[in-house]
Amino acid sequence: MTQSCPRRWPRPIVSYAEVLHRHNIRPNLCLQPATGYRLATAAAARVLAVETDCLFCKIVAKEIPAEIVHETDRTLAFRDINPQAPTHVLVITKGHHADAGAVADADEGLADEMLKAARTIARKEGVAEEGYRLVFNTGAAAGQTVFHAHLHVLGGRDLRWPPG
Amino acid sequence: MTQSCPRRWPRPIVSYAEVLHRHNIRPNLCLQPATGYRLATAAAARVLAVETDCLFCKIVAKEIPAEIVHETDRTLAFRDINPQAPTHVLVITKGHHADAGAVADADEGLADEMLKAARTIARKEGVAEEGYRLVFNTGAAAGQTVFHAHLHVLGGRDLRWPPG
Repeated sequence: MTQSCPRRWPRPIVSYAEVLHRHNIRPNLCLQPATGYRLATAAAARVLAVETDCLFCKIVAKEIPAEIVHETDRTLAFRDINPQAPTHVLVITKGHHADAGAVADADEGLADEMLKAARTIARKEGVAEEGYRLVFNTGAAAGQTVFHAHLHVLGGRDLRWPPG
Repeated sequence: MTQSCPRRWPRPIVSYAEVLHRHNIRPNLCLQPATGYRLATAAAARVLAVETDCLFCKIVAKEIPAEIVHETDRTLAFRDINPQAPTHVLVITKGHHADAGAVADADEGLADEMLKAARTIARKEGVAEEGYRLVFNTGAAAGQTVFHAHLHVLGGRDLRWPPG
């Protein structure tokens, strides 16, 4: 069930809190909804995304680097900074939604698009056959640390139960 | 972060394999796609669902009992038979889709509807404020045991990291 893993695994542990600190971003401001990405021009969207002061919006705007592995018109996927499995990728919506419930509220088929992106990534990473786990954390007790909805895609090792 | 829990927690551990055995259902036949629920009449749908020989299709058809906590036109939610947290509910699509990728392929906004159902359940159960975790297992290495897509909704205790 294990596979050879040419990627950096395990990687040095760093946290999003550290990234926030380095880039002088106040945590939890991601809670502010960004409407920017619905605007007509990419430029206007980018400006509004910056205003949200949200780590993941800044990754979307390419202001903070991330190891991007997949991109569609409405989603972006990049490797988790503190991976918990050989494959650990985050799929986010380009527009700002605080959590999974907010993604669903948008009623734009965004969750379906995130699941499709996750499967494409699992195939690219060679973990689709053996299996992968998808996780949305919603709220602090569930471990959500960045309040911009993100879907964890984990694979490349046997995943235990319970899921945390 | 903990809450009083009037529900049966911990509950005696039983497995879906046991349920399959009791009801004389061959495991993995859930992999057969059911088109039944797209048919015009509920009766026809019910017959086809039975044909799939799928545990969760049988729960949808009310042929196998489950502790149902929420229902919409296209989703059904019931308590996990082997709960891993005070709140542990499965949200399934009424139509048969083998896994999360198949749900997304349907392109019917089903994933969004599942996320909305999950949030409604979290609110009903009183775990929405503190937080809840949503998990899709896709494939054996991830722990998928019933091949009818289901979203685990877990809450009511602090959830550890990694998620399995």
